Amino acid sequence: MAKINTNFSKLAAGYLFPEVARRTRVWQEKNPGVKVMRLGIGNTTEALPRVLVDAMKKKLDLLSDRNTYTGYGDEQGDIPLRQALRDFYSRKYGVELEMDEFFVSDGGKSDSANLQELFSSDNIVAIQDPAYPVYVDSNVVGGRTGEFNPKTGCYDGFVYLESNAKNGFIPEVPKCKVDLIYLCSPNNPTGAVATKAQLKAFVDYARENKAIIIFDAAYSAYIEDPELPRSIYEIEGAKECAIEVNSFSKLAGFTGVRLGWSIVPHALVCENSGENVLHNMWNRRQCTFFNGASNIAQAGGIAALTDEGYKACSELVDYYKGNAKIIREGLESLGLVCVGGKDSPYIWAKGPEGVSSWDFFDMILDRCHVVVTPGSGFGPAGEGYVRVSAYGHREDVEAAVKSIKENLKI
Amino acid sequence: MAKINTNFSKLAAGYLFPEVARRTRVWQEKNPGVKVMRLGIGNTTEALPRVLVDAMKKKLDLLSDRNTYTGYGDEQGDIPLRQALRDFYSRKYGVELEMDEFFVSDGGKSDSANLQELFSSDNIVAIQDPAYPVYVDSNVVGGRTGEFNPKTGCYDGFVYLESNAKNGFIPEVPKCKVDLIYLCSPNNPTGAVATKAQLKAFVDYARENKAIIIFDAAYSAYIEDPELPRSIYEIEGAKECAIEVNSFSKLAGFTGVRLGWSIVPHALVCENSGENVLHNMWNRRQCTFFNGASNIAQAGGIAALTDEGYKACSELVDYYKGNAKIIREGLESLGLVCVGGKDSPYIWAKGPEGVSSWDFFDMILDRCHVVVTPGSGFGPAGEGYVRVSAYGHREDVEAAVKSIKENLKI
Repeated sequence: MAKINTNFSKLAAGYLFPEVARRTRVWQEKNPGVKVMRLGIGNTTEALPRVLVDAMKKKLDLLSDRNTYTGYGDEQGDIPLRQALRDFYSRKYGVELEMDEFFVSDGGKSDSANLQELFSSDNIVAIQDPAYPVYVDSNVVGGRTGEFNPKTGCYDGFVYLESNAKNGFIPEVPKCKVDLIYLCSPNNPTGAVATKAQLKAFVDYARENKAIIIFDAAYSAYIEDPELPRSIYEIEGAKECAIEVNSFSKLAGFTGVRLGWSIVPHALVCENSGENVLHNMWNRRQCTFFNGASNIAQAGGIAALTDEGYKACSELVDYYKGNAKIIREGLESLGLVCVGGKDSPYIWAKGPEGVSSWDFFDMILDRCHVVVTPGSGFGPAGEGYVRVSAYGHREDVEAAVKSIKENLKI
Repeated sequence: MAKINTNFSKLAAGYLFPEVARRTRVWQEKNPGVKVMRLGIGNTTEALPRVLVDAMKKKLDLLSDRNTYTGYGDEQGDIPLRQALRDFYSRKYGVELEMDEFFVSDGGKSDSANLQELFSSDNIVAIQDPAYPVYVDSNVVGGRTGEFNPKTGCYDGFVYLESNAKNGFIPEVPKCKVDLIYLCSPNNPTGAVATKAQLKAFVDYARENKAIIIFDAAYSAYIEDPELPRSIYEIEGAKECAIEVNSFSKLAGFTGVRLGWSIVPHALVCENSGENVLHNMWNRRQCTFFNGASNIAQAGGIAALTDEGYKACSELVDYYKGNAKIIREGLESLGLVCVGGKDSPYIWAKGPEGVSSWDFFDMILDRCHVVVTPGSGFGPAGEGYVRVSAYGHREDVEAAVKSIKENLKI
């Protein structure tokens, strides 16, 4: 008699973004004919750069000729792409890694969710709060929590590292012993970016406690301040204690094309494993549970890391950052307190005193016809905030900000 | 102090196909200049059909225009593809399913490995022996076994359903109570295909014991005998007890493009869950751990299910089946006993009495310069056999078969 994994039933409500979509749909049905403007989900909207499209079409031509057709690639990714990633880290970040420390995937979300499988279910997990829901949910399914407490918005067993106005939305290191730490910088949802000193504190903590940091750098391309770290490996000692997850989604507009990578260094160690063990485990995991990213997407990824391709991607990133500036200035003109939107595509805006995130979400939708994302969906410390995304056509962002400025009235 | 998931250390040796590749590389280094012919891995070799390539290029054109660009799709897959799959099952198999019972993925391997996450770690797992290694390995990582016993080639805790010459390589239902049953038909590696009566015995067993069947139908397009079932849902009652996994890899040559699907019916039930529970769990799993298959690949998948696209794919399938015929006839002309190669791209060949699979592998490589896959790599009942794959250019298959016929000398 088959039995289900009951950890699934601990998961609180639905996944955040489908829930936002559902509520928006319900509102739209009640308000037919009203144009809803979307600054909710972090979904890219601008055309793929021509140089990337050309590279993918060229790959399709190769696949349509039996002399150049290829089937399964390496589960870890095509060697030219892994080499290009290694060279990119060296050239852009001054970070020296080996080619085989890069594992190409179908996106940062999959890796963010799957990496916990390498660790035993009795590890204590610390989560930045608020955070991208995948870190929490995957560890709930992996059995590293008790039940969800609807009163506190917390799962028993997790250690929540609160990001708030006091600490500039970058949490301090845990006060107790934890085993796994999820960090994301530039942060989704707050848009805050950790400094080198702040990341160093986490690396020092992890080395001292033999903890592992899972560092999500999916928005690193949005950092323009040269003093801010774009890879955790800019911090000395991080190779011993940190895995980095990254993606072409927000760099190259590949949200639908699907391509990402993770870095699992040879030097990574933890309590019951020496050098190379975690590296080899992730290799085995990917060879067993995954069959490589799409070869068409990988051709696009290689093109994105050439000088010409990266320039085109940077223009895309700059476009969204232009949107972010418009949004932040618009919200601040109403007296709203905001974080992010400079080295990040997200703006984290505090609602009126005493108004919950979902109520602020409803208020903005009702009064301004703009969809944002309720901050409480990212964790209890997000309560009272909303995340505003800079992904959208410029004219739509301008229209949404105009509507907020004219109609929010708080 | 982070601790690893020690289930990984139970995994026997490396993953089979990288190990075959490694041994071949070593042999090649010792024999420089000798042309190695490959009938090993089940990797497609022929050009992608033009109609599929055109559809994917058209999708790239849409993505390169800001007015038609789209980012994240639904985690479950694009609606037109799910509708096309539903219509395909109705039209081709007479199987009526609902659109939302189809979950599009990046390939059958991922789903085959990930589906076990829905079940608790104390489920008893029955595995067809020999079998595609992913079913075994993913359940080892999921904690459903004891240690690997190198003497028997078995993991403690698994129930092995032996496929052998006596039962025509389709096993009988388990003699004890099991919870999860992995079946693959047409079978990888043996090429044997289960009849409706044989599948019905498993469906009856599963319903009686509230077990769940995970049915891998990745090679269903190779079935030409109209009496053989191409979907488990051709068997009455299967919707209550079976999940079906399938793929565009061997249908459309998408091994590198990456696209597959699984069917998780609403009616599926098990001991501690009623209707819709497993369906909703898989939906939540995919929304949390996955972000949809590549939109470019999905455009190709939609084209593959049109009349024109399916005709082109069928020609591809027929080409490989032509290879299979040549291989089987060649091996049989040497007096080797073979299974498969008719409604399947794989031929399962028995080596000389007393010769192990790896020794037979070495013999074929040494004498004939042909790479096959050792049967013991698929499970203990595979010992003494090799799997010969029909994926290859016709002229290469002919050359390999000629070399085997001239040089094997057994």
